[in-house]
Amino acid sequence: MSSPQILNIGICGFGTVGQGVWKHLSAHLGDLESRLGVKLHLARASVRDLTKKRDVKIPARLLTTDPLAIAKDPSIHIVCELIGGTTLARQVTLAALRRGAIVVSANKALICEHGPEIIAAAQQHGGHFFFEASVAGGIPIIKVLREGLVANRFTRIYGILNGTCNYILTQMEDRNASYAEVLADAKRLGYAEADESLDVDGWDTAHKASVLAWLAHGVWVKTDQMIVEGIAGITPADFKHAATLGYGVKLLAVISRDFVSNELSVRVHPTLLPESNVVANVSGVFNAVSVTGDVVGTTFYSGRGAGQDATASAVISDIADAAALLKHGKGSHLLGEDQGIRGGGCRLTPPERIRSRYYLRLTVQDEPGVLARIATVMAKQKVSIASVLQTPAEQAGAAALVLTTHESNERAIGTTLQQLRALAVVLAEPVLLRIGDFEQ
Amino acid sequence: MSSPQILNIGICGFGTVGQGVWKHLSAHLGDLESRLGVKLHLARASVRDLTKKRDVKIPARLLTTDPLAIAKDPSIHIVCELIGGTTLARQVTLAALRRGAIVVSANKALICEHGPEIIAAAQQHGGHFFFEASVAGGIPIIKVLREGLVANRFTRIYGILNGTCNYILTQMEDRNASYAEVLADAKRLGYAEADESLDVDGWDTAHKASVLAWLAHGVWVKTDQMIVEGIAGITPADFKHAATLGYGVKLLAVISRDFVSNELSVRVHPTLLPESNVVANVSGVFNAVSVTGDVVGTTFYSGRGAGQDATASAVISDIADAAALLKHGKGSHLLGEDQGIRGGGCRLTPPERIRSRYYLRLTVQDEPGVLARIATVMAKQKVSIASVLQTPAEQAGAAALVLTTHESNERAIGTTLQQLRALAVVLAEPVLLRIGDFEQ
Repeated sequence: MSSPQILNIGICGFGTVGQGVWKHLSAHLGDLESRLGVKLHLARASVRDLTKKRDVKIPARLLTTDPLAIAKDPSIHIVCELIGGTTLARQVTLAALRRGAIVVSANKALICEHGPEIIAAAQQHGGHFFFEASVAGGIPIIKVLREGLVANRFTRIYGILNGTCNYILTQMEDRNASYAEVLADAKRLGYAEADESLDVDGWDTAHKASVLAWLAHGVWVKTDQMIVEGIAGITPADFKHAATLGYGVKLLAVISRDFVSNELSVRVHPTLLPESNVVANVSGVFNAVSVTGDVVGTTFYSGRGAGQDATASAVISDIADAAALLKHGKGSHLLGEDQGIRGGGCRLTPPERIRSRYYLRLTVQDEPGVLARIATVMAKQKVSIASVLQTPAEQAGAAALVLTTHESNERAIGTTLQQLRALAVVLAEPVLLRIGDFEQ
Repeated sequence: MSSPQILNIGICGFGTVGQGVWKHLSAHLGDLESRLGVKLHLARASVRDLTKKRDVKIPARLLTTDPLAIAKDPSIHIVCELIGGTTLARQVTLAALRRGAIVVSANKALICEHGPEIIAAAQQHGGHFFFEASVAGGIPIIKVLREGLVANRFTRIYGILNGTCNYILTQMEDRNASYAEVLADAKRLGYAEADESLDVDGWDTAHKASVLAWLAHGVWVKTDQMIVEGIAGITPADFKHAATLGYGVKLLAVISRDFVSNELSVRVHPTLLPESNVVANVSGVFNAVSVTGDVVGTTFYSGRGAGQDATASAVISDIADAAALLKHGKGSHLLGEDQGIRGGGCRLTPPERIRSRYYLRLTVQDEPGVLARIATVMAKQKVSIASVLQTPAEQAGAAALVLTTHESNERAIGTTLQQLRALAVVLAEPVLLRIGDFEQ
């Protein structure tokens, strides 16, 4: 593509984020143009319904109901894919890349599911794919990992990547309220979707973990290759027990790389974090990421993870990078398509080498000998008990046993859980939380 | 400059940071080269003493005692100025820029004092100036402000930018120890320089604040245009009083921009921060920066601020950006030399419009009527008292009066302090701390 002096931008998907991009880009246009030395033109936007009233007004002649028309329009230099989902969004992304255009995407699910295809299309046809808005919207974590910390190999990246879950957990803790109650409130307030499962079951976090793992390690890890556990099983009692032990509870993505064994593990699960850990103190809809590099040590980032404005901020920073790329000719150094080389053929860490301490809450028959039976099961798997707390359970005749373990591993704890479920004295699904003893 | 396939790097100043860059760049060379698509060659380094033993071994033939020879060497594409100071460092920087080379700098004092001259030299001769390592080494804050948050206008940036001061304050608080005692320990441990004044009197923080203010607002603010106050007057009692009021004490740089009145204030002073503020919880040698943008809201960053490894991480990220720039021809979009346009002719906020609540500790004669006299002085300046705490002072016959005020301004509090100093009943230099009620 030659170096045009006016860059046309097309917005596919004119929902909350699309409108935010249009609004903030319009407001900062002069400033951005003089910094970039190019003219930016908001050329077209696609909507589902041409007649719908919107907060952001744009001339009707710029609207279309066909996002593919924008993706294929040779006059559009930068295509923002803000439709969501993985069907039409995939078509739009591939169509734009295949004509050598730049795609700016906020779509983590699409990257997680179709990343290799997207990157291959970009490479093959000279297109470029930018995705700052796909993870932790308000935090420029993609740029930080790819450019700011380029000197580093990343031994551990972990954090809170889903604002809805963090809002629910924070509310449960602060108000001593049940998961169901807080979820209902969150839906009413618009903090949770009508179908909440993508968020609360950990899948959205897993999509983002996949993006970060690829970026940091050049390996595509699918969600079915990860441990993915959600927050629905957590009760107010867990927060109390955790606090007694000096911990908070957060849903984390954890990406650990061992450069000696050349193994990588990517997982998503509720985690007990020491109250002194800065990630444990990130509340509400905020996201947070802790990054440990072999040169820089541990650094920490937080900000709003989603929402119209934070996501628009990320999309616009990609548009600025895209404009610079178009103005100055071929490729910046650290684009996504160069990532693959970071992989070095690392393999996924087998369960028996994913080590952690564990928190286990069991609802058991309140009778003598129960602890002995449970301890026997655990001992057989060499899972060593560090502490035991027994409290009344909600159910009559039942007790809650809260155990913490010394360091064990995913294989041993998995087998232990299976065997505990089979015991007649264990009355409900055990609640397992990892304890995150991360360096800070 | 044409696009070379081998990029020669010269390191001027082979102290802690210079050796760190050499060490980590050597270790990650293959990885960086394949990501960048260019060969990097550590070509030359300048030292003061050729015979000195060093941890990092490099061939003697690469060493010189003349950094200017490296700066002027036409075969060196990237000159890292890691000498420090503002005399030889300035000569090296200008010499390299004047032949169109790229300079990577960690030198905040140089930028603060000679920024306009450096940027002009770069612009005039086609050189480029990179300075990620000059502020908050381990945190890629320059890239975050310039690129990651490019969609934003920055209403407030504040943070801990000096690890030595934060170490001293943290130790004083944790150990209930005096400033002098902790400073002596810090010197012994190598956390403070033999001449500590650059750090503890706030000048190093002020240099960094100047760099950030320029980057965010395109205006050069010299240290004599700022409020700059250090930490030497703080006592363990201040930490206790602050804690009683729900605050911690941090030395902060605060950069506030009002886009309505078009005013900018840059200041450095010890600040009471609510214990719930994440910046208040950053301990030891760590740095932290809170950035509020008009689009993204408030984001937060922390990491090691200085030291061999964190600084090397930042220098190497600049080298990578420089390599991309050289490989792909002219200019990335958001280099320092484009910053000036952000200024928009903003002026410095006059003292009467720099508003804050204040904490004031006075050592006073322990006799009736003293509070009345002090309150009268304050009332005359319309400084309204919010709380008063009287405790015994160390001096016999003296009392400590700890006052907090409602919101006032720098002019009123300045005049108040002058008049309080003149009172016979005020026995020692008053200790004034600002209260930081910042949005989070």
